[in-house]
Amino acid sequence: MFTGRQPAILRKLGLVNLQLLPRLQLRTYATSKLAVPNNQKMTEAPFKTLFEKIDQLGPRFIEHLSNAVAIPAVSADESLRPMVVKKAGFFRDQLEHLGFQDIQMRELGVQPPPVENPKLELPPVVLARYGTDPAKKTVLLYGHYDVQPAALEDGWLSEPFKLVIDEEKQLMRARGVTDDTGPVQGWLNVVDAHRELGLELPVNLVVCFEGMEESGSIGLDKLIADEADKYFKGVDAVCISDNYWLGTKKPVLTYGLRGCNYYQIVVEGPGADLHSGIFGGVVAEPAIDLVKVFASLVDSQGRILIDGVNEMVAPVTEKEKELYEKIDFTLDEMNAASGSETCLYDNKSDILMHRWRFPSLSIHGLEGAFSSQGAKTVIPSRVVGKFSIRTVPDMDSATLDKLVIDHCNKVFQSLGSPNTCRTELIHDGAYWVSNPFNASFTAAAKATKAVHGVEPDFTREGGSIPITLTFETQLKTDVMLLPMGRGDDGAHSINEKLDLSNYFLGMKTMAAYLHYYAASETK
Amino acid sequence: MFTGRQPAILRKLGLVNLQLLPRLQLRTYATSKLAVPNNQKMTEAPFKTLFEKIDQLGPRFIEHLSNAVAIPAVSADESLRPMVVKKAGFFRDQLEHLGFQDIQMRELGVQPPPVENPKLELPPVVLARYGTDPAKKTVLLYGHYDVQPAALEDGWLSEPFKLVIDEEKQLMRARGVTDDTGPVQGWLNVVDAHRELGLELPVNLVVCFEGMEESGSIGLDKLIADEADKYFKGVDAVCISDNYWLGTKKPVLTYGLRGCNYYQIVVEGPGADLHSGIFGGVVAEPAIDLVKVFASLVDSQGRILIDGVNEMVAPVTEKEKELYEKIDFTLDEMNAASGSETCLYDNKSDILMHRWRFPSLSIHGLEGAFSSQGAKTVIPSRVVGKFSIRTVPDMDSATLDKLVIDHCNKVFQSLGSPNTCRTELIHDGAYWVSNPFNASFTAAAKATKAVHGVEPDFTREGGSIPITLTFETQLKTDVMLLPMGRGDDGAHSINEKLDLSNYFLGMKTMAAYLHYYAASETK
Repeated sequence: MFTGRQPAILRKLGLVNLQLLPRLQLRTYATSKLAVPNNQKMTEAPFKTLFEKIDQLGPRFIEHLSNAVAIPAVSADESLRPMVVKKAGFFRDQLEHLGFQDIQMRELGVQPPPVENPKLELPPVVLARYGTDPAKKTVLLYGHYDVQPAALEDGWLSEPFKLVIDEEKQLMRARGVTDDTGPVQGWLNVVDAHRELGLELPVNLVVCFEGMEESGSIGLDKLIADEADKYFKGVDAVCISDNYWLGTKKPVLTYGLRGCNYYQIVVEGPGADLHSGIFGGVVAEPAIDLVKVFASLVDSQGRILIDGVNEMVAPVTEKEKELYEKIDFTLDEMNAASGSETCLYDNKSDILMHRWRFPSLSIHGLEGAFSSQGAKTVIPSRVVGKFSIRTVPDMDSATLDKLVIDHCNKVFQSLGSPNTCRTELIHDGAYWVSNPFNASFTAAAKATKAVHGVEPDFTREGGSIPITLTFETQLKTDVMLLPMGRGDDGAHSINEKLDLSNYFLGMKTMAAYLHYYAASETK
Repeated sequence: MFTGRQPAILRKLGLVNLQLLPRLQLRTYATSKLAVPNNQKMTEAPFKTLFEKIDQLGPRFIEHLSNAVAIPAVSADESLRPMVVKKAGFFRDQLEHLGFQDIQMRELGVQPPPVENPKLELPPVVLARYGTDPAKKTVLLYGHYDVQPAALEDGWLSEPFKLVIDEEKQLMRARGVTDDTGPVQGWLNVVDAHRELGLELPVNLVVCFEGMEESGSIGLDKLIADEADKYFKGVDAVCISDNYWLGTKKPVLTYGLRGCNYYQIVVEGPGADLHSGIFGGVVAEPAIDLVKVFASLVDSQGRILIDGVNEMVAPVTEKEKELYEKIDFTLDEMNAASGSETCLYDNKSDILMHRWRFPSLSIHGLEGAFSSQGAKTVIPSRVVGKFSIRTVPDMDSATLDKLVIDHCNKVFQSLGSPNTCRTELIHDGAYWVSNPFNASFTAAAKATKAVHGVEPDFTREGGSIPITLTFETQLKTDVMLLPMGRGDDGAHSINEKLDLSNYFLGMKTMAAYLHYYAASETK
């Protein structure tokens, strides 16, 4: 599998031609700026050699990624579950080949409802270790090998499960390249490069690759809790490469995520859908009541109108304000990302604060009402409104639920409607904020500087990765988010891509991170 | 086709057994109470003989209806279009057999989009006349031979396109029995009974049976306009039997319908659907703006909140109030119809006025938002809200449109949202109110009294039959709605039925109406 026949293989794969490879290397790999390691231990770190090896193994690393993304491991598509399992096996084989030990394919049992096939087995969590030296720190690498759905007819420029290199734009396009197959493959490549050099890894590694992240990480919380003092015992830091840079130019390290409490408002009235000609003006219409409750939740400037919610939010400090001012981000980038000029704020700090550290309330839709094109004269008898609140420090989830439900009940009561209304939580996931000055973040910042020549921006994200908090609380250790891709990679969208430079500089950053973290004072 | 072998046929059809027929006649036909015609001409009217003949021909009339409803003439199902055409032929054959003249199968051309088959021909409008005596009045009978979709698996107790007689409940069940195949067949049976008696019809008849009523009467408006001074020249009154009694016991004549103006509010913002984690709180959400506009339209008591709309409604007079008080209807019937206790009024008059003579505003739904089960964290980039207003005298449709659009624009402007919003009319259909004391209604009231022994209630309906107004305006004549079925017949629903008594007493009322109308003073 790991032979020297890359050019022939690449030709066969139609990925790049022989002329292209040196050009790729020229434009992509040569951007690395090696900083001189600045402490005793790090002077030993063979960064120059290591980075050159990563560049040299480029064709192999692209081939591995190409083979990985060719497996349509869509966890949301039950019919593709065998492909998800196959992709787990693909990574297990690589782990074996690379000399990982104690490799386990941990089964999680039958997938709970709602499922079409009640006997559908969850894909395995792949666990493995590399090294058990008690003198070394241990880093847990989390990633996921499943991907979002993708189909050519959605608007992809090429088959989504076939890696294509756009030579002009110097990027790779395929479902999963940035989310999260590229980063997972990247970590394995880092080990590969060390082995090719005969270089010892500076830390012990534990890997935890799951196959259900795009479908809610079903079963993983329990596995982490169960293994906290077993398989994961002794882990010093957790590194998750499953997010993206804020923009397209500046590397970032991510130290915070918003949580998400998702609610539904169920308004019920007539026994069946009614004809608006016969019943309009005579019966109380659930959809009318629902829009009244909806309208009471938030204003058009995004301000949450539910009493007590904003009061739970941690105040902004002067020091914190400075953080946002330093971030490399502009209103233009925001507008480019939303494809519009609908931004509610005109300056960087407000945009970032409202994305990262203030709560937001979004109205997602309405179940049970007429939702097609055209004109149907129906009075829906039962409507279910969906909305969610992104949560931030110091909001208490249970208190929030109570405030939300009380508010909706109060507004509905005030309507004097004979219909019934109940508001309920569908699911929640807590926010996460870490200390960006701990040893792990410091090591990653040094690695970023060594590879990219710039200090990373320290960012938070508006979205949620609930497993982050699970690792932190169960393993009682620091978690860091070290992204590989860019903000415009189109994860979850069409034409998902990963710039070649992000793949290779990302691997170098990962490698350097392990060395800097190993050399850090804390253990 | 019209032989005396009914018992054998009925046995073959499995409709009724030989013992049942006399019982049907006993329980159903004998309820007719013959009033003595009260003017010179009417003393000649052979009601007793005529009604006895209708009873006597009962098995034949049931057989005809059974054969008619066996043809699945669903106009909304393109694959069943040949069946719609076949049913047109079924009625043409009967018209020929009964001696109608100038029978025309008027083709309306290709059905306009949206259609799956761009060459789909519309079903023909069947035109025919019976008599051209200039000394007689001419009555146009409108009906439709197409039906709503129906499938056993929707919850029908028996195959929807096979007429079944429920002996216990003394009713016929099949798609179309009440809407509108039963009434159409009823009119032909009235002619048949006259012919069997060798009795001259007291009026000239023009029939106009269409096959697209359940799909918007496509093409019929133009045909009526084109033929107003040609085929339909000289028509004195139009009689439409395509609605129902208000309740289940009291016959009604219908003199009013509400109109319907259907609108959509289009709110657009981001260039594509966005992730609420990343963009929530930062971009202006179209769904938030839309629910604000929606919430401003109407309150939970059904009061329209758009300035100027209620001011256009004709005031309620004391005399009019008395009309509602006399109608046979209860809150319990209302609640039974809605399957709930969500009625906004607790007394008959308010219910009827808000159903018939006040406008109403219904919110139908939302296109473009999340409408499935579950929890999706999407910010919809474009939402289209659907609502309609049922219109009544003296609302002006164009003025209403302006008030509605101005209102929505004003409310949206007040939100200060960077999104865009436009409100537009999708379609409208005018209300219709006739004079329930004109010659046609008076004749039908006398006929009802003669057959049922009670004065009919004069009702309006909340829904719309736009073709009613077309006949009135194009033919410059009176239109009357003379229903055959009851309010609980389940037209458009499962287990559509027509009580045997309504079929037979309905035919007698139709027959008596023609005689009373012929005898009326006006021409």
